[in-house]
Amino acid sequence: MAVKAFGAYAADRPLEPIDITRRTPGPHDVQIEIAYCGVCHSDLHQVRAEWAGTLWPCVPGHEIVGRVSAVGAHVTRFRDGDLVGVGCIVDSCQHCEDCDAGLENYCDGMIGTYNFPTRDAPGHTLGGYSQRIVVHERYVLRISHPAEQLAAVAPLLCAGITTYSPLRHWQAGPGKKVGVVGIGGLGHMGIKLAHAMGAHVVAFTTSESKREDAKALGADEVVVSRNPDEMAAHAKSFDLILNTVAAPHDLDAFLVLLKRDGTMTLVGAPATPHPSPDVFNLITRRRSIAGSMIGGIPETQEMLDFCAGHGIIADIELIRADEINAAYERMLKGDVKYRFVIDSASLAG
Amino acid sequence: MAVKAFGAYAADRPLEPIDITRRTPGPHDVQIEIAYCGVCHSDLHQVRAEWAGTLWPCVPGHEIVGRVSAVGAHVTRFRDGDLVGVGCIVDSCQHCEDCDAGLENYCDGMIGTYNFPTRDAPGHTLGGYSQRIVVHERYVLRISHPAEQLAAVAPLLCAGITTYSPLRHWQAGPGKKVGVVGIGGLGHMGIKLAHAMGAHVVAFTTSESKREDAKALGADEVVVSRNPDEMAAHAKSFDLILNTVAAPHDLDAFLVLLKRDGTMTLVGAPATPHPSPDVFNLITRRRSIAGSMIGGIPETQEMLDFCAGHGIIADIELIRADEINAAYERMLKGDVKYRFVIDSASLAG
Repeated sequence: MAVKAFGAYAADRPLEPIDITRRTPGPHDVQIEIAYCGVCHSDLHQVRAEWAGTLWPCVPGHEIVGRVSAVGAHVTRFRDGDLVGVGCIVDSCQHCEDCDAGLENYCDGMIGTYNFPTRDAPGHTLGGYSQRIVVHERYVLRISHPAEQLAAVAPLLCAGITTYSPLRHWQAGPGKKVGVVGIGGLGHMGIKLAHAMGAHVVAFTTSESKREDAKALGADEVVVSRNPDEMAAHAKSFDLILNTVAAPHDLDAFLVLLKRDGTMTLVGAPATPHPSPDVFNLITRRRSIAGSMIGGIPETQEMLDFCAGHGIIADIELIRADEINAAYERMLKGDVKYRFVIDSASLAG
Repeated sequence: MAVKAFGAYAADRPLEPIDITRRTPGPHDVQIEIAYCGVCHSDLHQVRAEWAGTLWPCVPGHEIVGRVSAVGAHVTRFRDGDLVGVGCIVDSCQHCEDCDAGLENYCDGMIGTYNFPTRDAPGHTLGGYSQRIVVHERYVLRISHPAEQLAAVAPLLCAGITTYSPLRHWQAGPGKKVGVVGIGGLGHMGIKLAHAMGAHVVAFTTSESKREDAKALGADEVVVSRNPDEMAAHAKSFDLILNTVAAPHDLDAFLVLLKRDGTMTLVGAPATPHPSPDVFNLITRRRSIAGSMIGGIPETQEMLDFCAGHGIIADIELIRADEINAAYERMLKGDVKYRFVIDSASLAG
């Protein structure tokens, strides 16, 4: 089945209309008419080949929401018309320890929603900047938000789960002081989620201008990290710091804000290394630096239900598909509050 | 009370005999005739001013064992003749969250056994390279090993607890695969302790010659970390890696050996930074890099009792006090199996 998409044929070419095909749904497949797709910074990294191994043509997009338009014979959990989502994962080995634990995101055989090998043409997965996608039911999420919020639900499928999973894993909640570093696509979700979990939330930004915005998102306090006095006032006080900044920066400035046994979890991987953190800052308080990547499928469903229950959606700016190249340029400048979302209807041309 | 000690008057001078004084025991003090004192690499760092803030004269030593020779009026837990030990801590604030949790090692007001401020002359603490020490009862440990093992118990007070505490905290035990990096003073204790806790222990060394030694210490497997094939065979398999190496080295080589949710705990702080670890190695398996420093007083007692119950002592080489400068040179070359211990009787001259 031919569908319209937006993607690139090479790293140095802009994204443009591409005709792609989707497989006929198999017995366990769900066919989804995509309504909206969020724009993640990973999309830009991959399509511009800033990350290794880009396969051409590249159709990015892993924050997908839409409605079911067909299901395979063995699919019982979904039917036509259901509001559903697809995130960063469209397949995995389904039999390893990680898959058994519902942590498909850590499976060695995880197949990402774009740029991963597949039997379907053209031999690698093509993402959500497209009209339709066909996905094994295991990786399809149910959306219980009101339909009119659908566009703003899309970013939950990556930015939402990428922040929700570490907040849950390291037990953000009442009585815990949680920092969120960076107020972008991921960080703005981290603030909303940690606040809804009942934690005392401190947002860190390099920009004085984001102070009021961060409070509006749910931060109890905002620290401009360029101000040493503001930083020092929070020394040795955090249970958890969720660091969403992928640009190389001084990790020690945040490590010293953790209390004994506190953890700073990184969810962004910089293209060049951070300055090496001072081991002394780890040893003297039994602190940890950890990493976390997306989240598993059951936890993604839990996150969507949590957000629906708490009225949480992303703050978005809706764009047409043909605005994507301009949106990338704005994203690079941090000029978006806080996530671009493509209106898939614009793909029809 | 004047007692004989061994220490240095300046960073560029060798250690030599020094006469020091110890306070008359107060109501909560325990006076200890030191029988043996272990030689820790920290001693060398501090007395040679490789670490900042050395106070002169410097008398190192924080692996102290001996017999009680007097107790203050309020001391009920100890009496003359008891076998006791003193480790790295001789005081702390006694009222913070850390002290209340028995984690005096993380108290902001922790007073180390040497080179920390005190009211006693000469204004800073003087360590265990001496005939006698007077310590508040809270920081005195009971030793239940046979008296003839006393010299080999001394290193438990630092090398033992520094490895025991993270092994317990990160739950080394049956069913867990635990790596120990570096087979020196700390590492050889880490292997013995992790083995006694019931973990599957893999020792990592850069030296082919230590392979059989490590097995004799209790390692189930030994990996020569310079051999890439040997390392690769253990990829993604460890629950915990206890890294005792203080010299700067490639942390990524060990991070990739951790399974999902695994932790590498550093107990040595390098004088110059490790190469910056690859964040990707943390993110893709939700791994952590942590630090741990010594252990609290209750846990030190627990460790001593555990070691007595399991017949665990350190492997030592007993020296006279006047051999300390030569011992430092050998320690720098790794030429000791695995800990020097000073026979305090040699201080009498």
